[in-house]
Amino acid sequence: MASTVEGGDTALLPEFPRGPLDAYRARASFSWKELALFTEGEGMLRFKKTIFSALENDPLFARSPGADLSLEKYRELNFLRCKRIFEYDFLSVEDMFKSPLKVPALIQCLGMYDSSLAAKYLLHSLVFGSAVYSSGSERHLTYIQKIFRMEIFGCFALTELSHGSNTKAIRTTAHYDPATEEFIIHSPDFEAAKFWVGNMGKTATHAVVFAKLCVPGDQCHGLHPFIVQIRDPKTLLPMPGVMVGDIGKKLGQNGLDNGFAMFHKVRVPRQSLLNRMGDVTPEGTYVSPFKDVRQRFGASLGSLSSGRVSIVSLAILNLKLAVAIALRFSATRRQFGPTEEEEIPVLEYPMQQWRLLPYLAAVYALDHFSKSLFLDLVELQRGLASGDRSARQAELGREIHALASASKPLASWTTQQGIQECREACGGHGYLAMNRLGVLRDDNDPNCTYEGDNNILLQQTSNYLLGLLAHQVHDGACFRSPLKSVDFLDAYPGILDQKFEVSSVADCLDSAVALAAYKWLVCYLLRETYQKLNQEKRSGSSDFEARNKCQVSHGRPLALAFVELTVVQRFHEHVHQPSVPPSLRAVLGRLSALYALWSLSRHAALLYRGGYFSGEQAGEVLESAVLALCSQLKDDAVALVDVIAPPDFVLDSPIGRADGELYKNLWGAVLQESKVLERASWWPEFSVNKPVIGSLKSKL
Amino acid sequence: MASTVEGGDTALLPEFPRGPLDAYRARASFSWKELALFTEGEGMLRFKKTIFSALENDPLFARSPGADLSLEKYRELNFLRCKRIFEYDFLSVEDMFKSPLKVPALIQCLGMYDSSLAAKYLLHSLVFGSAVYSSGSERHLTYIQKIFRMEIFGCFALTELSHGSNTKAIRTTAHYDPATEEFIIHSPDFEAAKFWVGNMGKTATHAVVFAKLCVPGDQCHGLHPFIVQIRDPKTLLPMPGVMVGDIGKKLGQNGLDNGFAMFHKVRVPRQSLLNRMGDVTPEGTYVSPFKDVRQRFGASLGSLSSGRVSIVSLAILNLKLAVAIALRFSATRRQFGPTEEEEIPVLEYPMQQWRLLPYLAAVYALDHFSKSLFLDLVELQRGLASGDRSARQAELGREIHALASASKPLASWTTQQGIQECREACGGHGYLAMNRLGVLRDDNDPNCTYEGDNNILLQQTSNYLLGLLAHQVHDGACFRSPLKSVDFLDAYPGILDQKFEVSSVADCLDSAVALAAYKWLVCYLLRETYQKLNQEKRSGSSDFEARNKCQVSHGRPLALAFVELTVVQRFHEHVHQPSVPPSLRAVLGRLSALYALWSLSRHAALLYRGGYFSGEQAGEVLESAVLALCSQLKDDAVALVDVIAPPDFVLDSPIGRADGELYKNLWGAVLQESKVLERASWWPEFSVNKPVIGSLKSKL
Ligand SMILES: Cc1cc2nc3c(=O)[nH]c(=O)nc-3n(C[C@H](O)[C@H](O)[C@H](O)COP(=O)(O)OP(=O)(O)OC[C@H]3O[C@@H](n4cnc5c(N)ncnc54)[C@H](O)[C@@H]3O)c2cc1C
Ligand SMILES: Cc1cc2nc3c(=O)[nH]c(=O)nc-3n(C[C@H](O)[C@H](O)[C@H](O)COP(=O)(O)OP(=O)(O)OC[C@H]3O[C@@H](n4cnc5c(N)ncnc54)[C@H](O)[C@@H]3O)c2cc1C
Repeated sequence: MASTVEGGDTALLPEFPRGPLDAYRARASFSWKELALFTEGEGMLRFKKTIFSALENDPLFARSPGADLSLEKYRELNFLRCKRIFEYDFLSVEDMFKSPLKVPALIQCLGMYDSSLAAKYLLHSLVFGSAVYSSGSERHLTYIQKIFRMEIFGCFALTELSHGSNTKAIRTTAHYDPATEEFIIHSPDFEAAKFWVGNMGKTATHAVVFAKLCVPGDQCHGLHPFIVQIRDPKTLLPMPGVMVGDIGKKLGQNGLDNGFAMFHKVRVPRQSLLNRMGDVTPEGTYVSPFKDVRQRFGASLGSLSSGRVSIVSLAILNLKLAVAIALRFSATRRQFGPTEEEEIPVLEYPMQQWRLLPYLAAVYALDHFSKSLFLDLVELQRGLASGDRSARQAELGREIHALASASKPLASWTTQQGIQECREACGGHGYLAMNRLGVLRDDNDPNCTYEGDNNILLQQTSNYLLGLLAHQVHDGACFRSPLKSVDFLDAYPGILDQKFEVSSVADCLDSAVALAAYKWLVCYLLRETYQKLNQEKRSGSSDFEARNKCQVSHGRPLALAFVELTVVQRFHEHVHQPSVPPSLRAVLGRLSALYALWSLSRHAALLYRGGYFSGEQAGEVLESAVLALCSQLKDDAVALVDVIAPPDFVLDSPIGRADGELYKNLWGAVLQESKVLERASWWPEFSVNKPVIGSLKSKL
Repeated sequence: MASTVEGGDTALLPEFPRGPLDAYRARASFSWKELALFTEGEGMLRFKKTIFSALENDPLFARSPGADLSLEKYRELNFLRCKRIFEYDFLSVEDMFKSPLKVPALIQCLGMYDSSLAAKYLLHSLVFGSAVYSSGSERHLTYIQKIFRMEIFGCFALTELSHGSNTKAIRTTAHYDPATEEFIIHSPDFEAAKFWVGNMGKTATHAVVFAKLCVPGDQCHGLHPFIVQIRDPKTLLPMPGVMVGDIGKKLGQNGLDNGFAMFHKVRVPRQSLLNRMGDVTPEGTYVSPFKDVRQRFGASLGSLSSGRVSIVSLAILNLKLAVAIALRFSATRRQFGPTEEEEIPVLEYPMQQWRLLPYLAAVYALDHFSKSLFLDLVELQRGLASGDRSARQAELGREIHALASASKPLASWTTQQGIQECREACGGHGYLAMNRLGVLRDDNDPNCTYEGDNNILLQQTSNYLLGLLAHQVHDGACFRSPLKSVDFLDAYPGILDQKFEVSSVADCLDSAVALAAYKWLVCYLLRETYQKLNQEKRSGSSDFEARNKCQVSHGRPLALAFVELTVVQRFHEHVHQPSVPPSLRAVLGRLSALYALWSLSRHAALLYRGGYFSGEQAGEVLESAVLALCSQLKDDAVALVDVIAPPDFVLDSPIGRADGELYKNLWGAVLQESKVLERASWWPEFSVNKPVIGSLKSKL
């Protein structure tokens, strides 16, 4: 397969323009085209290329260098672009089922162009769409069609002004009125206004509104989703009783209109209840396939995994762009050198390598993980769709929930820190807006927050592991999970006896070393957390208190170490499978080792503390191995970036262009800005209206 | 002193409005007014209040909620505000000499209002002003007057498009022409355009331009500063031969116009050379009080310490604002609780405490340090002004250079990370632009870059320490420095034998524990770095290579540990001095211990690796001590914030207001935004111009 493209199809993977990056490209240990084909496959490469080319050729997507877009204008543009995506219809429903990985690929392509576009499209088609699809029933199918035809525009309204994380405390109510067979949606006060809802600010005609369902003469039945019309599609004016507006400028994603809504006794038909989890009969009796409120609540929020898995992918795309920009810059920016005459690219400095290359490795490892987790999720959803009620299906749901709840934090934080490092690694030029690192950081930032605040989410993962351990301790159960992410824990007493035995850097340059250490670490943290939790409880803490007290030093690192292990494990297996072309084995092995050891090195204190490490050498070997891998990878860095970087038009960063003509591109772009050389309109404020120094002193 | 204000002068420290923050205020272990007086002194409090009140009462400084300022409008406003500061003339030159700390105080006040304002003012008055003052001679005094009267407007132009850090490679030239007694300032090509220069974009009439000085028939004499007129003050139009423009939008500080300039054989009088470091006679002979180029170069850039010390202060002010916002939010935001009915403030969660309180402690410790370092700098500058050429004066210069070169990175990074944590700690609301955390982060960001990229600067500090050690090894010299920051190193062999002996958390709650550990750590890293460097050289590396290879795992942590130790030491001494009012001792002691132990805990792996820590307990005790201090400080957090937060008008964050009315303030502010409830102007794009799904598919 490689050869076809290598030989003939240069249109799919065209050569890069010659220029200052040639030297590094020539030194690469592998063919970037071969790696691109191995990583993505020809079909996926074609799919992405189709999307990127369509955007590049369509003036609606033209980049507008130097434009100072107003909020309103940006939102309009973003809406028009979103609409245009429907006209292109890049991915048909059949395609989606045939090649599910095209879903995150489409989102990544749109997100690489602009996060606001991806968010707007995703919220309508996937978040709103799947909420209706997966929480509703046949009677709601008509909405699905309207969603795909963009006859209505949707949003997902859970959060309120005063409640986000604690969804149980959501206060919007839906009282059923049997007389008219309607629900009355009501916000008791502005603190219960729906808030932060993407697409709600200016565009949405419909919302999936989460509200407490109450039927007459009965207690309330907890949170349920309702589909509520909030604007008239014919006029985009609000429906009676709905006060809907825009929450204003955000740190990023400003093409997206996040909004609020207060409902004043808004009546919606009984059928508006998305009734998969519970329904109300015309007479007003509540019926549910679930036994208790907790179970129903869990199930109704279960669909959140899919949101979190998408966010992993949204985060990584930002990191891809950032490392592409920073590494191409580093390979062309020369500063200092062995002599006064000769300056070397800053990528030659071990410091710069150490700051950036681990994030490049993280991109590869996390991107692989995000695809594999997405496929797991597809399996879960197929089971749900086919009505699978097996124990395995339930276990799979829990395992994916645990993995998604920790990988969203891992991916969003790694990206957050990575973009910041990239920004700084580009020196002053990284601070220029046109080079895009600021936008990437700002757009990525909410990935740490929405679909569950990272720190709170990690509790889900540590609770999952603690639950398994309790089950083992009390019932002698084995550690087994459908995706096998926890199976190694069966051997935990033995694992806890292991020690770090690697004594030379050369022996350390393999992700297997990190894997063994991570297994020990997870076992250690699991045991410690379990003991600490029980100790807290024995000394009188409630369950609530005990968990809160254990989270910082136990639950949090446990959840992170567990998901890092899983990411490392999957990438390790991926790069060591027999189908890896021999010419790619070395570079992929190094990426895997670098990500693994670098991540592990942040836990070095714990490795020492628990006795896995001892002596000066262990820490030194780990540190030196990371540096050695950086140095081994630096000549491959540009080629590795060539594999993940989108076309220049999409990357949209003068210092990150594929031709490496750093200064020409930057200078050219600066001169394109608006009114660059023009005198400021307010020049007389300097030249004519002179200040009288101290003239206002008397007013002080 | 405390009593006057406590009793009578409520105008200086007025009571806070009653509201949801009362509960925490009532639980505080100390009087915030007493701490404010102790920390600032009454005179300083008055000074700051005068400034804040003037801004609040002047409509030019009115906050404009919801306004979507264009770049041009923002720059205009910022210029007008800068001019107004001259009209207020808050700080006369005499005051400046009498109370030097009022200089950073003024900058902090302006920066708290808006970083762009502080930067614009600072660059003109202090950076440009002191460059002229300290590099020029009597013949340049006329400029000083013009600067203070704002008859000219200045900028400092060192960086070029292709060179920043490596100033030696700056390529702008200044050839002397004896025929006309002029210098010819010339940019060989656009890569040598001055770039990034603050105030140059639209405002500056004059620039201190660094260029390579060349006289006929002689080699060039390296970089020298020239004062060059770039625009006509009467028209703000560029001078002939000067192509000057604006580099465009940045990640932050957009009220400031950063610019570029290319010089095409621009002739300036011989007297334009700022001639303290070297001069040219009318006939064209180069004369200098310095022996060689290197020495001159060092001296001409020596004034950079003062810029770095100012940046420490600029960074900290951002962190002050961020922690004030995040902690007031955390004390009023309730989410989850021990029962379904009762929700508790998120500040009650150990996780939230651990995420935020160390940054609160960092504010106190670093703010104290920044003031004390500023006073050291004043001493240095007085010595310079009085012509002190003593060895002590030279040593003082080197020590301050080493401290400033590491404290700028420490303060800017701590702030960067702290603001990010604050942003995330406020959940979704932290992502709303009006709450200001985004602006703070963006405005702080370049503190990591300008006046020297952080990572490069740290090399200065590690080189300083290595130089001292080499001196000791080769010449048996003692470790002695004017500010005594290195004196402890004299005992380094003994210190290296020490071990961590604290076995209970209770014994660990003191900054003395961290001090001892830090001393060990610095000695350990110094020895390791020295050995590693020599080993690299022995195995054939050049000095350049050896240093580059040692920086990541040795030089960098050494420089950071050294400056952290110094910060901890100074704050420890400050809070343990006899003059501390007894009622403040407990809380100040905890702040000192928390900052110290938390900073130290990031080096835990090194403490184990080098054998200072051993066994599980050491790491556990350290971790538990940090958590215990957080828990002890959480009831004091709001009062500690009350001491450092500026008035609401300046803080400008609905979720951070002193009344704690989180939701009322946020809701009110959202409704004030522009066109909140209005239908989007582009509504027909949804309602009328419907997309035909897939209509463009054929184009793909
Ligand atoms: C850009 C953006 C888009 C969004 N889009 C939508 C949308 O379309 N629809 C929608 O419904 N919502 C949306 N949201 C809201 C989002 O889901 C919430 O912001 C998110 O769930 C976090 O909740 P919160 O803001 O209430 O944070 P809070 O729960 O208030 O958290 C504040 C802080 O308290 C801490 N905390 C809270 N509880 C605990 C605890 N028990 N232990 C320890 N710490 C705790 C958190 O860690 C956090 O640091 C969006 C948010 C953003 C920023
Ligand atoms: C907002 C802002 C305002 C500014 N204002 C001014 C101004 O008023 N006047 C002015 O003259 N300049 C100004 N500057 C420029 C500023 O001083 C430079 O950006 C700064 O000195 C960093 O230099 P650089 O951008 O060339 O970074 P570079 O030197 O290009 O650094 C790029 C990267 O390479 C790394 N690197 C470089 N050399 C080495 C090495 N030897 N070892 C290891 N790593 C290395 C750096 O760490 C960095 O990560 C401003 C910059 C900004 C962002």
